[in-house]
Amino acid sequence: MKSSETSERLVHVPLGDRAYDILIGPGLIGRAGGEISTRIKGRKAAIVTDENVANHYLEALIDSLEADGIDATSLILPAGEKTKSFEHLTRVCDALLEARIERNDTVIALGGGVIGDLAGFAAGIVRRGVRFVQMPTSLLSQVDSSVGGKTGINTRHGKNLIGVFNQPDLVLADTDVLQTLSDREFRAGYAEVAKYGLIDKPDFFVWLERNWRDVFAGGAARIEAIATSCQAKAEVVVADERETGRRALLNLGHTFGHALEAATEYDSSRLVHGEGVAIGMVLAHQFSARLNLASPDDAERVETHLKTVGLPTRLSDIPGELPPPEVLMRAIAQDKKVTGGKLTFILTRGVGQSFVANDVPCSEVVTFLEEKHPQ
Amino acid sequence: MKSSETSERLVHVPLGDRAYDILIGPGLIGRAGGEISTRIKGRKAAIVTDENVANHYLEALIDSLEADGIDATSLILPAGEKTKSFEHLTRVCDALLEARIERNDTVIALGGGVIGDLAGFAAGIVRRGVRFVQMPTSLLSQVDSSVGGKTGINTRHGKNLIGVFNQPDLVLADTDVLQTLSDREFRAGYAEVAKYGLIDKPDFFVWLERNWRDVFAGGAARIEAIATSCQAKAEVVVADERETGRRALLNLGHTFGHALEAATEYDSSRLVHGEGVAIGMVLAHQFSARLNLASPDDAERVETHLKTVGLPTRLSDIPGELPPPEVLMRAIAQDKKVTGGKLTFILTRGVGQSFVANDVPCSEVVTFLEEKHPQ
Repeated sequence: MKSSETSERLVHVPLGDRAYDILIGPGLIGRAGGEISTRIKGRKAAIVTDENVANHYLEALIDSLEADGIDATSLILPAGEKTKSFEHLTRVCDALLEARIERNDTVIALGGGVIGDLAGFAAGIVRRGVRFVQMPTSLLSQVDSSVGGKTGINTRHGKNLIGVFNQPDLVLADTDVLQTLSDREFRAGYAEVAKYGLIDKPDFFVWLERNWRDVFAGGAARIEAIATSCQAKAEVVVADERETGRRALLNLGHTFGHALEAATEYDSSRLVHGEGVAIGMVLAHQFSARLNLASPDDAERVETHLKTVGLPTRLSDIPGELPPPEVLMRAIAQDKKVTGGKLTFILTRGVGQSFVANDVPCSEVVTFLEEKHPQ
Repeated sequence: MKSSETSERLVHVPLGDRAYDILIGPGLIGRAGGEISTRIKGRKAAIVTDENVANHYLEALIDSLEADGIDATSLILPAGEKTKSFEHLTRVCDALLEARIERNDTVIALGGGVIGDLAGFAAGIVRRGVRFVQMPTSLLSQVDSSVGGKTGINTRHGKNLIGVFNQPDLVLADTDVLQTLSDREFRAGYAEVAKYGLIDKPDFFVWLERNWRDVFAGGAARIEAIATSCQAKAEVVVADERETGRRALLNLGHTFGHALEAATEYDSSRLVHGEGVAIGMVLAHQFSARLNLASPDDAERVETHLKTVGLPTRLSDIPGELPPPEVLMRAIAQDKKVTGGKLTFILTRGVGQSFVANDVPCSEVVTFLEEKHPQ
């Protein structure tokens, strides 16, 4: 932990020759040039961002880089999930080569998960890998996608099916930028914060139950919550960088969540990712209780907390019609590999006691969904 | 070295958790199913190949895989360098997802360098990496591109500028397939064989001077030459997998060679890659002699050997007009980074004593080319 900036936190991700720092705190966009130039040799940077973020922060970032002698170019892409495509990947790669970004120069992803995933992928393949800095601008990307090195694009076969593991050289999570998020976006990111408590940090979940108002208000508690989330994610990633086992725990709530996102056709007016995860986490706890793995009290406690902060927790909280359970099950089976009628699922023995189950019968999932969502 | 098959050789590439075997010998296409199924868990394989190679070997490979219980699909692409494009990369990725290739399933590159580079790149990014087997069908790809993990595609900015380091899980170099190569293709591949002697294996170069006729004739000497080449490349790759230093030695002859390929507009009727490398290696030795680094006798010895096997060794051996030295220098500068009028070049102190020089003045290169190629 750094003490020079009272409220700033530093989380180190010890991945050998791919180790890196995550800085979390206010004013980091203004100090980006200094933080990058002390860590990366190249004097060139290409900023990849989207239209919305560019309006707010691009100029300040360019000024900061140039003040520290880094020559900056930028590429502004359309906002939204559709930008994670082969077409835009080609465009980003071409722009990086046009800007003559070399192996010691830097690609900076300034934006949310879409920009981070796309720019991180491009940085991993241009010249077989150039330097890469994540500057996440949403709570969701600060606590989740900017850490851990997963990058990628979507195809007609599904989300994130093409990509590379490409750890960043540095993550700068400027907490000032969270001020411009809508309440709904902030809450959606908070679902991923709560997830780390539910995976294996029961004390953190207790802390969130007590301090969530301060986290939502901003200031030191918010920075603390983000830093604890990054630390939690870093621990899982260090234990299993390429997701051969334990890293799957990060998918708690995501199997149901992804199916709900697909069922609502990724229509953000009905459901955004973090909301799907919130409902998914409640369902995962209820499903675990139904399988006699956990007490129903835990499922209720999880639901109560997420509901208290204003997140949806039930299928009926989603506006509009949902497809029947068998269709949801098909969406789950498209997302996860099903072998012999069984699939991998993140289940739990209680708050902070999640585990990877490799043999969950699809039939049990369907029966459970029928109970939760009678037609 | 393996003894069960008298003439088969095994070269192990000790890259930690990315270690792999290279098998070199006759009949490997017919035994591919067995070699793959003992090393890779998945029961599915997708073969990527080109029209020419498919006609000769695709059926035999599919039979071999299916005989060992591996379910095989195939994708046949147009032959030629133009296939190394974003467009074909997208197509290969889509086909792999369509075939439901999972992380433990295998992508097999059956073909020369173009197929290996493209399929290896796709295998490295589909699901952030699936299993990958190289089955090189040209001498050039057996001794060079199939070993070492460089994959990639070309863009309008240059060759191989987009790609990943993706070590294969296995290389099967079936020497029977070399029978169908034209003399010219075989000789072009031989230039890269000779290169390993010139880099740091003077005894191997002596052996080639004595035994080249047997290498061209086929049989044990050919297998020996391929195995020694793979071993030499593996040593360089293990010392510097991601080319931060020593691996650049593999570019001996390639700086001049690439410029000549560009100058002849990649017209294979005038010059193919290995021929450019042959001329480039002679020029690199002559240039080193001119800089008083090596004896002119070494340059002459290199030229004599390459000429004896039938390779071009002089600029005047290339049919048609060549551009003036300044234009060749521009092509060199596009290929290599020039800093302050200086560039990185592989020079030599004599046969088997190559080294990486980081500060070669472009002006010296131009003067040298003017002498070699008076207008």
